[in-house]
Amino acid sequence: MPPLGEFELIHRFFDRGPARRVELGVGDDCALLGPFAPGRSLAVSTDMLVGGRHFFDDAAPESVGHKALAVNLSDLAAMGASPLAFTLALALPAADEGWLEGFARGLFAIADRFDCELVGGDTTRGPLNVCITVFGEVPLGGALRRDGAQPGDDLWVSGDLGAAAFAVRERLAGRAPPPAALARLERPEPRVALGAALRHLARSAIDLSDGLLGDLGHVCERSRVGAELRWAQVPLAACLRAQPPAEQAACALGGGDDYELLFSAAPENRAAIAALAPALGLGLTRIGTVVSGEAVRVLDARGATMPTDVRSFDHFA
Amino acid sequence: MPPLGEFELIHRFFDRGPARRVELGVGDDCALLGPFAPGRSLAVSTDMLVGGRHFFDDAAPESVGHKALAVNLSDLAAMGASPLAFTLALALPAADEGWLEGFARGLFAIADRFDCELVGGDTTRGPLNVCITVFGEVPLGGALRRDGAQPGDDLWVSGDLGAAAFAVRERLAGRAPPPAALARLERPEPRVALGAALRHLARSAIDLSDGLLGDLGHVCERSRVGAELRWAQVPLAACLRAQPPAEQAACALGGGDDYELLFSAAPENRAAIAALAPALGLGLTRIGTVVSGEAVRVLDARGATMPTDVRSFDHFA
Repeated sequence: MPPLGEFELIHRFFDRGPARRVELGVGDDCALLGPFAPGRSLAVSTDMLVGGRHFFDDAAPESVGHKALAVNLSDLAAMGASPLAFTLALALPAADEGWLEGFARGLFAIADRFDCELVGGDTTRGPLNVCITVFGEVPLGGALRRDGAQPGDDLWVSGDLGAAAFAVRERLAGRAPPPAALARLERPEPRVALGAALRHLARSAIDLSDGLLGDLGHVCERSRVGAELRWAQVPLAACLRAQPPAEQAACALGGGDDYELLFSAAPENRAAIAALAPALGLGLTRIGTVVSGEAVRVLDARGATMPTDVRSFDHFA
Repeated sequence: MPPLGEFELIHRFFDRGPARRVELGVGDDCALLGPFAPGRSLAVSTDMLVGGRHFFDDAAPESVGHKALAVNLSDLAAMGASPLAFTLALALPAADEGWLEGFARGLFAIADRFDCELVGGDTTRGPLNVCITVFGEVPLGGALRRDGAQPGDDLWVSGDLGAAAFAVRERLAGRAPPPAALARLERPEPRVALGAALRHLARSAIDLSDGLLGDLGHVCERSRVGAELRWAQVPLAACLRAQPPAEQAACALGGGDDYELLFSAAPENRAAIAALAPALGLGLTRIGTVVSGEAVRVLDARGATMPTDVRSFDHFA
């Protein structure tokens, strides 16, 4: 068999026929998005995943395909936007058909589930790198931003925290992570329905990719507020229950890659938000309060400030 | 000095304050594009540049910043779209401040010249990789597509061809390329004004990134037509004049990275198209004809078919 060429590769794995959700999809110099309904904005986010850094070198290609789009859909969720389409730029060390087949299967499984259409991309040779740019629709002026938190707001988080970071720590220590923790790391579930439901209930939102304290810091900085987190209320992943307190805090406060939503909302919306949990099949927990000032403090069960030397993830620090 | 962190890096080199051209720019989970005027589409293209592959490892960082956006703007030009905004995803081996400063200078110089605003991105550690997704506006249904060529159309090309490929061949042969050829390779000029002017004059367009024959093949395949190219009319870059015919053909027919526009138009538009050349300060040359069928032939000065074994660029072949 001749080697798989660039255009054959695109045709075989990534061209699924005429566009459904946009004016023009894969195959021209540009995709054409539109027409747009009046009063809509287009939310755009881009995330780059590097082999050996954002996923282990032995990660299943299905998981890489899933995660590459999932982390982008999570950014849409954090804005309250509904998925529309995405582009895919892919650098590959070689045109490995088995890897590509698995990657495409994982990618399109989540793309189809969220009705998010591949509309264009680029393929080149190079160290493994997956860069997706995602597009979603949101009412003009109606997106959930990082700068909307106000003193007095409740702080909420979806799901539970720390499993993805625990899986990384176990792997790096040479141990096999619990399967549920590895699944959280490799196949995160973007909280798209929650984000859309929060558009009229929350004042600010962010997705947890850098870690709870780091991402809360981003919200506080943009909103010019402080926050008090109640550690006893932070929902821990089941795999952390038997771990020492320092490990729990490192994973649940400092660990990234959970892709849950952290959001703030006025106290009068408590009942409406709590009612979303059973509807979405997703835990929603009040974990603290937005305060004036700029300090972010973590309080223990007795209300005393805990020392927090956990750091949020930084690719260059 | 402490090492430069991810957020400090973004702040110092890539955050230029509140968005001018869109609802929300750098600093949140997503950028928000809009509102869109009725009857407009958004053209989207993404290109990934890999260190040591799309530019030499010793390329000046200003050139890398320039080229990364220029090749994306060239895709907008090929659709007749007007630049609006872009996102930047960047994998860096290290946070090298000198390199970043040069890269940002080259990037923003061309961005500002085309009024194309950076609205978001991602920064991570990894082998050098620059992935830009660009957004442009175009009237709904009015974009220049690859599938609009019709038998009888003239084939036109802007500028001259082959200099970028010649620079690569000279470098790979261990010789210093002529400075003008190296400049074409490292600092291509996207033909944005030409693309916009062609919206009402051309039937199809593509930018020359894979090589004239390869890109003409893409147009013919999408339009279900053939083409006859007249080799004697193909405008050669000055640096090719003294080269042997085989070298001229390899660079001007098979070489990529010229980023000129190849377009087809009805013969009745000849005078209007020719009049664009002095207005834009850019040569526009008729180099052939669209024909029925599917064959792409190159004719010599006597009208005989030339053997063409030049291949267009393929990252995996």
